[in-house]
Amino acid sequence: MFRIPATWMRGGTSKCWVFEWDHLQVPGKTVDEVLLRLFGSPDHRQIDGVGGGTSTTSKAVILARSLSEDADVDYTFAQVGIDEQRVDWGSNCGNCSAVVAPYAIERGWVDAGQESTAVRTLNTNTNQLILQRVDTPHGALGDAGTQMIPGVPFPGMPVGMGFFDPAGRTTGALFPTGEPVEKLGFDGRQVTVTLIDAGAPVVIVEADAVGLTGHETAAEIDTRKELLVHLDDLRRDAAVQMGIATSRAGAERAIPKLALVARPEPGDKADIVVRMLSMGRLHPALAITGSVALTMAAQHKGTVLANLISSDVSAGVTMRTPAGLVQTWSEINDGVTVVGALRSARRIADAELLLPDTW
Amino acid sequence: MFRIPATWMRGGTSKCWVFEWDHLQVPGKTVDEVLLRLFGSPDHRQIDGVGGGTSTTSKAVILARSLSEDADVDYTFAQVGIDEQRVDWGSNCGNCSAVVAPYAIERGWVDAGQESTAVRTLNTNTNQLILQRVDTPHGALGDAGTQMIPGVPFPGMPVGMGFFDPAGRTTGALFPTGEPVEKLGFDGRQVTVTLIDAGAPVVIVEADAVGLTGHETAAEIDTRKELLVHLDDLRRDAAVQMGIATSRAGAERAIPKLALVARPEPGDKADIVVRMLSMGRLHPALAITGSVALTMAAQHKGTVLANLISSDVSAGVTMRTPAGLVQTWSEINDGVTVVGALRSARRIADAELLLPDTW
Repeated sequence: MFRIPATWMRGGTSKCWVFEWDHLQVPGKTVDEVLLRLFGSPDHRQIDGVGGGTSTTSKAVILARSLSEDADVDYTFAQVGIDEQRVDWGSNCGNCSAVVAPYAIERGWVDAGQESTAVRTLNTNTNQLILQRVDTPHGALGDAGTQMIPGVPFPGMPVGMGFFDPAGRTTGALFPTGEPVEKLGFDGRQVTVTLIDAGAPVVIVEADAVGLTGHETAAEIDTRKELLVHLDDLRRDAAVQMGIATSRAGAERAIPKLALVARPEPGDKADIVVRMLSMGRLHPALAITGSVALTMAAQHKGTVLANLISSDVSAGVTMRTPAGLVQTWSEINDGVTVVGALRSARRIADAELLLPDTW
Repeated sequence: MFRIPATWMRGGTSKCWVFEWDHLQVPGKTVDEVLLRLFGSPDHRQIDGVGGGTSTTSKAVILARSLSEDADVDYTFAQVGIDEQRVDWGSNCGNCSAVVAPYAIERGWVDAGQESTAVRTLNTNTNQLILQRVDTPHGALGDAGTQMIPGVPFPGMPVGMGFFDPAGRTTGALFPTGEPVEKLGFDGRQVTVTLIDAGAPVVIVEADAVGLTGHETAAEIDTRKELLVHLDDLRRDAAVQMGIATSRAGAERAIPKLALVARPEPGDKADIVVRMLSMGRLHPALAITGSVALTMAAQHKGTVLANLISSDVSAGVTMRTPAGLVQTWSEINDGVTVVGALRSARRIADAELLLPDTW
């Protein structure tokens, strides 16, 4: 029997098993074979292993100190098959990413600062650098933390997940038209929009300008077919204005996204209320890339969003979404703008997983 | 942060977290509160804890060396609420019970024999003594084991789960009428049955005698409403014959159970094929109490079951059920008959669970 050290952590709204590469080396077996057996796959219940029988609980993150000068930690995400005898290495997971900085600090791979600690992480699935920032009062990770996020009823450590210099990655400029606001047609009239490219290209419209409050539920928006057609026409015109498509008909369904924004209710601690439309429907919360665009829009004078906000959003924006509050975060790191979202993570268990000699 | 030692084991078709009582003592908190927080409850996904979000994966077994002279280990089963802030201590779990003997041997609470080891366990939920027998070749638990059971696609250690002296617990006698076979009416004719009380009262009928092969699927039996009515009438008459009910109408739906038995296909390693009817429907496999009754019937000359079996069943019976093979086991322990089923168990992980200081 082999004993494989592993740590079980919640990252965002997922449960992730955290390994180090060295510990997954088993004579005569591939890493895929080892992960599948440890997780109890293939089996729809994963009843003989550590997998949870759902996609959000059949995940592994594998870490190593980075060989790159640009990063402290390299990490690789693995979606471990449940019914299928297959490990998918093709994409990163934004939830499990949040476990990397707390793990690296606890492991001593990064020296903790007296207030907070920045960890430079390299995701090897996507070759993307992500800056993570974690609170380390008095130079150490504290207790379980107090950060709440939508979808998780318990608090965790806040983990800032920041993208380096996200402006203009698709179009070459933060404001592809050169202006913080533009006019676009909506149902026969002109409305003011902000076209911004940060994290992803996003069209921002004040909800009031299209006859909405911005506080609507999914059912209240998704059932209004005519409204959705007008909003999609506006979104497609925006794609042309931003240089992403050459014609309205040629615009993709997924890019740009459309954000409807409004002032929060009095007393709400949110800076802004957001309803994001994605693929023609209301998003239940907010994609992380969309939250980056909204944060940079809030921080630039003259945008539709900045005009609605009176609070100081230089370090991040608190957004009310249908699922609850989403907090973003930004800083200047070595002269480079970093913008991202705040997630939460918690170490659930330190373990040794038992792998049979043969299977 | 508290670190709570725990072992994750599969027992039968469940995943069970195994604790020792001492380790669950946390100042200012009840054991219920500690278990609920460790499991991540209440939350339908248990995403911030070790629970799996299903009833078969939100279970704890708590052990201690026994204070009783009759047992080596006392164990208490806890069904930990998922959505509900509630721990249910009201019943035992036959699946999680199978982890007790392997844990006690690994922990050194019981000296291992050179071939196998018997562990006397006391379940405190039900105050029931259960004898468990585990293979210990050369005086130790081996690797993960090779025992397969229905519902689990991986092998585990075989664990015999035996009930002491199970005969006559409901009616006072193994054969309540004094005879190994009786005649009962079925659809206007007489059929031969065995009425037996061991583990639970069971009526055993040869499938052929009621126009079936005994190899039917659930759909093939559950859709034959008229057949089910005739079988239930026979079962109710049996209740009267066994002295469990005073009239056909007064018989309970659950007691006695009805077992249809048949010879296996040529080449099948099973001794017998069984279709158990429970609450008017085909049981997907076999309740452990039903398997005890069938085993004792197989071991007594003249019963419907013994007449169908030519192999030696003195140490147990291999039964083919709709879900696969179920193996039973029996022995004489200190002069007392012990009969039970073989389950399987596997140690999945040794862990320390992290409990926040406050929550």
